Amino acid sequence: MLFRQLFDAETWTYTYLIADETTREAALIDPVLEQVERDLQLLTELGLNLTLVLETHVHADHVTGAGRLRERTGARVAASPAGAPCVDLQVKDGEELTLGGLRIQVIATPGHTDDSLSFLVGNKLFTGDTLLIRACGRTDFQNGNAGQLYDAITGRLFTLPDETEVYPGHDYTGQMMSTIGEEKRHNPRLAGKSREAFIEFMNNRKLAPPKKLDIAVPANRACGKTVNQATA
Amino acid sequence: MLFRQLFDAETWTYTYLIADETTREAALIDPVLEQVERDLQLLTELGLNLTLVLETHVHADHVTGAGRLRERTGARVAASPAGAPCVDLQVKDGEELTLGGLRIQVIATPGHTDDSLSFLVGNKLFTGDTLLIRACGRTDFQNGNAGQLYDAITGRLFTLPDETEVYPGHDYTGQMMSTIGEEKRHNPRLAGKSREAFIEFMNNRKLAPPKKLDIAVPANRACGKTVNQATA
Repeated sequence: MLFRQLFDAETWTYTYLIADETTREAALIDPVLEQVERDLQLLTELGLNLTLVLETHVHADHVTGAGRLRERTGARVAASPAGAPCVDLQVKDGEELTLGGLRIQVIATPGHTDDSLSFLVGNKLFTGDTLLIRACGRTDFQNGNAGQLYDAITGRLFTLPDETEVYPGHDYTGQMMSTIGEEKRHNPRLAGKSREAFIEFMNNRKLAPPKKLDIAVPANRACGKTVNQATA
Repeated sequence: MLFRQLFDAETWTYTYLIADETTREAALIDPVLEQVERDLQLLTELGLNLTLVLETHVHADHVTGAGRLRERTGARVAASPAGAPCVDLQVKDGEELTLGGLRIQVIATPGHTDDSLSFLVGNKLFTGDTLLIRACGRTDFQNGNAGQLYDAITGRLFTLPDETEVYPGHDYTGQMMSTIGEEKRHNPRLAGKSREAFIEFMNNRKLAPPKKLDIAVPANRACGKTVNQATA
């Protein structure tokens, strides 16, 4: 499997490129609108065909590049049925997508938002904003729910093998990846913490709303297209 | 081999952690002073012992964490004989360092600076500021030399197998890695360019000096210790 992690410095967002090295079919997970040209150039240089764009959830902190990538490449956009209505493919917990010879397992992990999905490809787990490195997504908007997030992380993600590599949607400390074993042992919000303690912590964070919330959520429900057309 | 790429957002510097998973001996390549606590915490959480700090060169854009890491862990600092006089170990082209069962091959790649080294560990090549993703380090200070840089990249690095993974000291487009094959084909300064054309391009860039040049170079010649003590 060809694999690349990409970074948008403006919103601290990680985008992931995965591809079957034989068939040259590629997927982008959580692309960022402002990085579409970079991503398309990389796909061209690597000789890859983008066939799939995966959204872990409707983002509140950046505008997705999904719609523009679909226009430019014909790729199908996939997300949760609880997510953006603009997608081509609604994928549910337990379903499997194929990308050439690669299998992408869909794991529903609601809590940060009600539409949050994680994707497992081989031993690489793409967690969106569900599980971050030594942290987790916030739960105070977009139907977030701290109890659900605790259950999703501890009941679903933490049952994967310890050596599973964790690739989050963001990191604010300059780390790129972790493992399930590390997060079980060292995530300060989860390691040795009860469900009740987690919920209390998450419900008392009193964070300011994400800066782009009012722009990003409606734009992302349209796969980034509204903003795309307005700013093109 | 355990491997982590780390990022300092202030200076856009990549630091690399490599370790022998059996002996738990670890090395950091190009650590940043301001990130020493992050790096030490990660080493602790991963159960690793830092025994080696490798500097690809005397940096002009950030202050190294080498000296502070040496104080805190007893790690030895290694760099080129043409580099910082504060190091414990001067390593030359063709030499090999061991890190538990791992072998670190030293490749002299002068041109960005006269002390620039690259390190090859398995199929991972750490290029410092010699070879960047679709770019290369500048050659207009610290005894930089465009002709030397061309020779180092094309004569040394580009003779490695195409699938060798390239991990640079910086990237300003949000990419984390490349391969030798990609850079041979797609690096706009090098692909299909003659030595003369490269030298002409590099010698006519007219860049402003790095912002931290006057602070970073003297501090880094003391392994970051002068600044460390002054600001501690």
